[in-house]
Amino acid sequence: MQIIITGGGGFLGQKLAHALLHSSVAFSELLLVDIQQPHPLADPRVRCLQADLTAPGVAASLISERTAVVYHLAAIVSSHAEQDFELGWQVNLDTTRSLLEACRHARPGIRFVFTSSLAVYGGPLPALVDDATALTPTSSYGAQKAMAELLVNDYSRKGYVDGLALRLPTICVRPGKPNRAASSFVSGLIREPLQGEQTICPVSTDLRLWLSSPATVVSNFLLAATLAKGDGRSINLPGISVTVGEMLDALTQVGGQAARDRVQFVADPAIERIVASWPGRIDNQRASALGFVADGTFASIIDSFITHDLQEAS
Amino acid sequence: MQIIITGGGGFLGQKLAHALLHSSVAFSELLLVDIQQPHPLADPRVRCLQADLTAPGVAASLISERTAVVYHLAAIVSSHAEQDFELGWQVNLDTTRSLLEACRHARPGIRFVFTSSLAVYGGPLPALVDDATALTPTSSYGAQKAMAELLVNDYSRKGYVDGLALRLPTICVRPGKPNRAASSFVSGLIREPLQGEQTICPVSTDLRLWLSSPATVVSNFLLAATLAKGDGRSINLPGISVTVGEMLDALTQVGGQAARDRVQFVADPAIERIVASWPGRIDNQRASALGFVADGTFASIIDSFITHDLQEAS
Repeated sequence: MQIIITGGGGFLGQKLAHALLHSSVAFSELLLVDIQQPHPLADPRVRCLQADLTAPGVAASLISERTAVVYHLAAIVSSHAEQDFELGWQVNLDTTRSLLEACRHARPGIRFVFTSSLAVYGGPLPALVDDATALTPTSSYGAQKAMAELLVNDYSRKGYVDGLALRLPTICVRPGKPNRAASSFVSGLIREPLQGEQTICPVSTDLRLWLSSPATVVSNFLLAATLAKGDGRSINLPGISVTVGEMLDALTQVGGQAARDRVQFVADPAIERIVASWPGRIDNQRASALGFVADGTFASIIDSFITHDLQEAS
Repeated sequence: MQIIITGGGGFLGQKLAHALLHSSVAFSELLLVDIQQPHPLADPRVRCLQADLTAPGVAASLISERTAVVYHLAAIVSSHAEQDFELGWQVNLDTTRSLLEACRHARPGIRFVFTSSLAVYGGPLPALVDDATALTPTSSYGAQKAMAELLVNDYSRKGYVDGLALRLPTICVRPGKPNRAASSFVSGLIREPLQGEQTICPVSTDLRLWLSSPATVVSNFLLAATLAKGDGRSINLPGISVTVGEMLDALTQVGGQAARDRVQFVADPAIERIVASWPGRIDNQRASALGFVADGTFASIIDSFITHDLQEAS
């Protein structure tokens, strides 16, 4: 029995791989696929593969009758998809479709865990977003994720896959370097100052965000492997609602005024427009009832970063 | 200045073509494209083209700098798309995308009128569906239409086209023969009995439908050519809310008990499931404010059929 992680070389893919290897989920192979050769993991069950999923036939070559779960994490992130229109559609929509087709033809009923995003929402939103809120993306990335959700739903309805589309909160604190997600600065507000580096905040302090730590998202991914039949349902993963100002207050408490002083405000209306179009608060009830979890407080998110990323790396 | 109608050989495309030729909309060419050679119209502005829009390069070959409006009516209808999964995606999603790409590269800002459907809705719905209602299709056709709407919206947001996605009510009375739409029976309930033929009703009399006559839809299409900048908005076209029982009462009034007796009830749970998943009533306010119109009563819909289709044909 095989588990596949696309984007398996990325930070979330690597964390998910580690967690699966130490979990009670049973499998004989864990295949990590990425556009760059994924970092190898010291477990005989792990196989790493460098592959371009947009190339013809690649998706079909990966998935076979023994595939049980596909975690489809590979994506072009929001600002990148806004800048490179073609690439965004190819990776975020067409590759998802190729993988779904491959699953359908390999063995109907493969659990297909698709990572969607808050970016499916946009424009005027109700104070509390819930499952009945219409998807109104205001970025190509959001449109691609919303369309891929519809694909996952339809393939599931037809019985071709057993799909789940998980809408991830903004992940904080993401280790490593800034990326081309519009939300990249969110992690930078904590990650850089705690390591003695300057960072830029492109939005105002009252911007409200919906956040999850990487560890919590990975816990929720593990549940997604074993959850009862998915019916293609889209699920807003639980998060916590925090303003940028509250994040900076927590940073000051942990890192002192010196850390806080490393945050410089340089407004970027394009970034603010995209991130402010995402909901800052979502009704958690349905996801919680299914067993999905959220972090406790933003302070605990910082603690998690220090424990799992700063100290392990040092 | 050119107007293009895909599906221009279909009954709605032909009615739209006639209406455009007799309207105040200014154009030098009206290009009717269809998979079968469209019926020619006696006007020097009309050009008819048999073409398969799913073939590579065809969409791009149609659209040029002089194209002002594209009415994209070509589609695989609901039951057909449910039976032929691949063909549905090719025609209803991929062709829409090819046309949008062709518009983008020919001249940004072409008015792109996409015909969407009630089938973007499904499952448990609020008593009154409005623009804030989430799209939850329960058929491949509905998923394809919902995804194409998202495409039209994103291409419009980027300024590549000036798009409008019009969600059509169920059209009644559709002249001609039954087709492979799940809603095909709706027109059959009136069309066949008024012409002395038997027809089958596969649903219960309390099923509520959201209807528009072809003439009213065509009026709304004309408005869509000249409406102020679209911003890719999705619009639920106005309709009237009528139960199957109310339709049959109107049939009896017009055609007498003899006409009513030509309707035989043979339940088809698959059809009932699809059609019952569509809203039977939609908030008209936004569409009405934009100038879109509905029929007065179901009796007037029957009158329209007798005047425009039965008498013109005879």
